[in-house]
Amino acid sequence: MTDFLALAQPGVQKLSPYVPGKPVDELARELDLDPATIVKLASNENPLGPSPKALQAIRDELAELTRYPDGNGFALKSLLAERCGVQTSQVTLGNGSNDILELVARAYLAPGLNAVFSEHAFAVYPIATQAVGAQGKVVPARDHGHDLQAMLAAIDANTRVVFIANPNNPTGTWFGPQALSDFLARVPEHVLVVLDEAYIEYAQGDELPDGLDYLARHENLLVSRTFSKAYGLAALRVGYAISSAQIADVLNRVRQPFNVNSLALAAACAAFDDAEYLAQSRRVNDAGMAQLEAGFRALGLGWIPSRGNFVAVDLGRESMPLYQALLREGVIVRPVANYGMPTYLRVSIGLPEENARFLEALAKVLGA
Amino acid sequence: MTDFLALAQPGVQKLSPYVPGKPVDELARELDLDPATIVKLASNENPLGPSPKALQAIRDELAELTRYPDGNGFALKSLLAERCGVQTSQVTLGNGSNDILELVARAYLAPGLNAVFSEHAFAVYPIATQAVGAQGKVVPARDHGHDLQAMLAAIDANTRVVFIANPNNPTGTWFGPQALSDFLARVPEHVLVVLDEAYIEYAQGDELPDGLDYLARHENLLVSRTFSKAYGLAALRVGYAISSAQIADVLNRVRQPFNVNSLALAAACAAFDDAEYLAQSRRVNDAGMAQLEAGFRALGLGWIPSRGNFVAVDLGRESMPLYQALLREGVIVRPVANYGMPTYLRVSIGLPEENARFLEALAKVLGA
Repeated sequence: MTDFLALAQPGVQKLSPYVPGKPVDELARELDLDPATIVKLASNENPLGPSPKALQAIRDELAELTRYPDGNGFALKSLLAERCGVQTSQVTLGNGSNDILELVARAYLAPGLNAVFSEHAFAVYPIATQAVGAQGKVVPARDHGHDLQAMLAAIDANTRVVFIANPNNPTGTWFGPQALSDFLARVPEHVLVVLDEAYIEYAQGDELPDGLDYLARHENLLVSRTFSKAYGLAALRVGYAISSAQIADVLNRVRQPFNVNSLALAAACAAFDDAEYLAQSRRVNDAGMAQLEAGFRALGLGWIPSRGNFVAVDLGRESMPLYQALLREGVIVRPVANYGMPTYLRVSIGLPEENARFLEALAKVLGA
Repeated sequence: MTDFLALAQPGVQKLSPYVPGKPVDELARELDLDPATIVKLASNENPLGPSPKALQAIRDELAELTRYPDGNGFALKSLLAERCGVQTSQVTLGNGSNDILELVARAYLAPGLNAVFSEHAFAVYPIATQAVGAQGKVVPARDHGHDLQAMLAAIDANTRVVFIANPNNPTGTWFGPQALSDFLARVPEHVLVVLDEAYIEYAQGDELPDGLDYLARHENLLVSRTFSKAYGLAALRVGYAISSAQIADVLNRVRQPFNVNSLALAAACAAFDDAEYLAQSRRVNDAGMAQLEAGFRALGLGWIPSRGNFVAVDLGRESMPLYQALLREGVIVRPVANYGMPTYLRVSIGLPEENARFLEALAKVLGA
């Protein structure tokens, strides 16, 4: 009997897959609960429900279901280029921004090369790096956030990519314009800086830099964004990168010809134009963050100040049993022990009643 | 100025992206035509329009658009496993079967290794092989079809994957059960055989083997299928592989955690259960194939007998100018010079009126 694990590439053999938030249906099956009673605050999803404009765009596209998507994503790329003030040749579309991160790894990393990223950073950075057999250089965090000086110091002759996230997931930490400027000025110009702004729409104006403003001065910068969070399209999988045209050309060679589906293309165009939905997402998030912070304060719990649509709360003891206890209460949040934060839980901001339900369940399981 | 093409992996630097069929909207823009008047028979799409059951499943799922897909694809995997007579642990879902082909390449190929495939075979085999820096060993075709004996002879110590397609795209050629049996019996057991059955639903019963019947005896066999053709879901991107549980485990480590979107998962379950749609797809295809063959005969043209939902017609002269002339008539078909077939055009089977429109335009441009 042939061992097809041993025949896989060395990096692949050692891969531990990404652990997603537990789906509502899965918990409902496991505990025989009514899915409608379950509150899921585990995957940084938009609690508002979909944008009506995105829904309409999907309905308008349904007659074309038997047709392949436009592999060049003409309409969405044109819209993104216009709004981002770049050329369409600088845009790469991805099957979620996860796809963008992988395309970078596959194009620029290999055995013998390395990528630098922070402790407590998004799990896909180490996974994508490992999958192509490259080395991940993990730089210790400072106050749970990126230590950009230490990340610069970690860059060596074999470094080809640095992943930074602003704000970072799962910590919610962020850095300001000056820190980004200083960092970009000092990164060797042959090292590709992937600035992951998956949550930027929740933070704009809040002392965070807009990565797009730095593209003209730094040809080695790629800004990655997503429609899965503030735009409410996680189900459909669509993200994008803005970079130099040359980097975009390389990534577009590597991507699958139809990596983004037709309904995602249509919905993303519509969502991008739905300013009211985006504004409401931001308002609900700001209010929900304040609600959770007040709740944590009342429970005597610490948390990491966050600019995302989630917050990591410190339970002061091993959090996994409390995660399990919350599941039994029908509340799904995210354990982050695999991010080196064994006493924390990451909680996505929900609607007011979802946040209240979570806080109530948390008080109960902490008291139990 | 840093050269980010030169910094890309060697295999990536040399990649020529897949060339898809020209989208209707693109031709409409270029020639200022009304999209509704354009006939596209270029991408082996199902001409029936979507399955009503698939449409309903999508509508039922729309409220969940802000939620991430079930990364484990529980419902679809369960359904596929049941109908294919395998365990769910043997199923890998892909963002189209293109994703499956790439997962295989990324898991099992690398510089110094090679994949064997046939001349005139699907363009994604060489692209996926090249993208990971492996060597593609192209085996000359026999009568445009796979020469399985020669493919066996091409396997060497560095071969890890053999891609075979039944029926093959773009030629429509096929092989029978005995040929597949003999082939599988002689392939070294450490070589993964990818049997691409993207078009098998159009051919079942037509003297073609069902790849699933060979899985129990051959642990090195992977059968790849898609919902893009007979099931009419090309827009949504969903394909699957059935293999040993060990190979599926490896591919599932490599795939993106949310590679298949939620609407695709829901629609695929519904389409898989829509036996009437599948039967009608087959009937329309059989009738359309007869219509095209009669038309070619009337025009004095040869063609390659096909078991797919397309047929390659030999124009007896360089076909690219005729392809261009057909575009000006508002008819999009597929040039296959890049498949080593410069005198052929590949035509997807359409509805009766679409086939007639194509034949009429073909007669006109041949006469011109």
